[in-house]
Amino acid sequence: MAVNAAERSAMDRALQLATRGPRGANPQVGAVILSPDGTVLAEGWHQGAGTPHAEVDALSKLAPGDARGATAVVTLEPCNHTGRTGPCAVALIEAGVARVVYALDDPGAESGGGAERLRAAGVDVDSGEQADAAHALIDGWLTAQRLGRPHITVKWAQSLDGRAAAADGSSQWITGPAARADVHHRRAEADAIVVGTGTVLADDPALTARDGDALLSHQPVPVVIGSRPTPTDAAVHRHPHSPLFYDTHDLHAVTADLHARGIQRVFVEGGPTLASAFIQAGLADRVLAYIAPVLLGGDKLALGDIGVASIDHARRLTIDEWVPLGPDLLAVARPAAPTDPQNQNEGAA
Amino acid sequence: MAVNAAERSAMDRALQLATRGPRGANPQVGAVILSPDGTVLAEGWHQGAGTPHAEVDALSKLAPGDARGATAVVTLEPCNHTGRTGPCAVALIEAGVARVVYALDDPGAESGGGAERLRAAGVDVDSGEQADAAHALIDGWLTAQRLGRPHITVKWAQSLDGRAAAADGSSQWITGPAARADVHHRRAEADAIVVGTGTVLADDPALTARDGDALLSHQPVPVVIGSRPTPTDAAVHRHPHSPLFYDTHDLHAVTADLHARGIQRVFVEGGPTLASAFIQAGLADRVLAYIAPVLLGGDKLALGDIGVASIDHARRLTIDEWVPLGPDLLAVARPAAPTDPQNQNEGAA
Repeated sequence: MAVNAAERSAMDRALQLATRGPRGANPQVGAVILSPDGTVLAEGWHQGAGTPHAEVDALSKLAPGDARGATAVVTLEPCNHTGRTGPCAVALIEAGVARVVYALDDPGAESGGGAERLRAAGVDVDSGEQADAAHALIDGWLTAQRLGRPHITVKWAQSLDGRAAAADGSSQWITGPAARADVHHRRAEADAIVVGTGTVLADDPALTARDGDALLSHQPVPVVIGSRPTPTDAAVHRHPHSPLFYDTHDLHAVTADLHARGIQRVFVEGGPTLASAFIQAGLADRVLAYIAPVLLGGDKLALGDIGVASIDHARRLTIDEWVPLGPDLLAVARPAAPTDPQNQNEGAA
Repeated sequence: MAVNAAERSAMDRALQLATRGPRGANPQVGAVILSPDGTVLAEGWHQGAGTPHAEVDALSKLAPGDARGATAVVTLEPCNHTGRTGPCAVALIEAGVARVVYALDDPGAESGGGAERLRAAGVDVDSGEQADAAHALIDGWLTAQRLGRPHITVKWAQSLDGRAAAADGSSQWITGPAARADVHHRRAEADAIVVGTGTVLADDPALTARDGDALLSHQPVPVVIGSRPTPTDAAVHRHPHSPLFYDTHDLHAVTADLHARGIQRVFVEGGPTLASAFIQAGLADRVLAYIAPVLLGGDKLALGDIGVASIDHARRLTIDEWVPLGPDLLAVARPAAPTDPQNQNEGAA
């Protein structure tokens, strides 16, 4: 049975509800219970480890029997696992839910299998509705599950010809106000913002997420990597969060430590040396390149060496989006899978 | 009086007709004569210096009196100048044409003023219809008129991070088949294709415009700039046109000579040293950057030094179009005018 308009709109709502919960050991999940005619009966979301899952939270707001014949719309596949709480699949079956629409399959080895269990009990199940949005919502948690480290975004601004600055080092501003505002909003979606000591010494960045002069409500923890000392009067010391300093070049060690601290989303802001090192280490789940329509030439490159010896070893990307921002263009990309059709570039010319 | 659908469609046709004429000392122009009810009465185009202009060519296909009350649709403002032929404005007035729709104002000091003359004689005149297309059609001729040199397009292919090749020099292929096919079609629109001797020695390019293995009908003249000798067995010697060789670094001298030879559109194809030199010399009316979603790093830059010392002297571009070509993206750009709003990049961040 295809997903209908009421269910689609309930999924929009469930995605919003999910963001009310904290990012932590468990994923952010939202749920909406609909009557057979599409009326919203109850809403729920997961409020963190040890508390009820989103579906159970929503069911708890209904009187017994009220969910009989209803449809549950959930951003993540209902779990099939007894942890600190019982399996959501069983809770839905016992409540008499007739249909479940969910966005994303549960990737957990232990928690997965909920859809199968629901179907075995005669519940109609539909999956994949707004899966991309649900994936984006919990990409940090998914990466942490899969790789045991945070989800890492590497961001830089560049001229069309790939420079981060002019020959004398001046770089304010290559991109325009719309691109810079976009950066601030994306900073606010991260748990940590990472720079090298070179950037701290050269630019003395505040590393806050701002809208004009106002701080946005969520601020990422500032992280400084490198062996040169940060001046005691550096702007980063005035950040709402205490900065973390890592005197190392071992990025795997840094990201493992950030993971241990519960950080799920890392935003790497530069400079070129650090961005190149993350890419070379394979620690870039997402790339954001803000491209300004300007030519600079010279040797101040936005990326330096990334360990690519020949074209066969090029780091191919899949572009998720080209986003126009005033005169600038943002490339939102991720490493291309080896089997990605965009990666098959042979052919005569 | 606004341009109507029949006139718009006649302008499409006139733009097609214009391309039947040769590129040369005179611009390519097309004309369509419409009856008051929008029926096509006659078509004409300019067939080269010394032959009738497009409007007169079209009128010549009608019996005397047949153009009375008609509308002439022309890609360029009818001339007001007696050269080897009489002024077209007068020919139209004498034929009894009631209305003239044209695309582009005539920039010539001698030939301009036709619209004014038509209006003075009571002819209804409308201009600007499809002016961009008419401009693109004769950009070479317009540049030649204004600057006494050909219109110059500088093209390169690059990785997202601005590299033309990997560290070992391998570069086949950074961009995909759609981008490479686009290059060939744009080559075919040029009168000359220019490379440096470094590119000839490194890549031995054929410098032909091809569709797959087939030669396109128009082939640009191959031009090689630089002091290193081209091997006698180089592919460029098998080009349908004899190559021109310039043993100089003076690009102004080269473009002046190409202008003297009647070449109006130059396509600069590489490599990085030559592209950078054209840009640094201010000899790039259009930039085509084919951007592949791939990261290469390293020192094989698509552009080298272009003489920009600080960000205030950045060569700002106006993007006319971002063209998706398979996984790649083409930036079609031109130097931003100093007064261009896109060039005003101040603002806090």
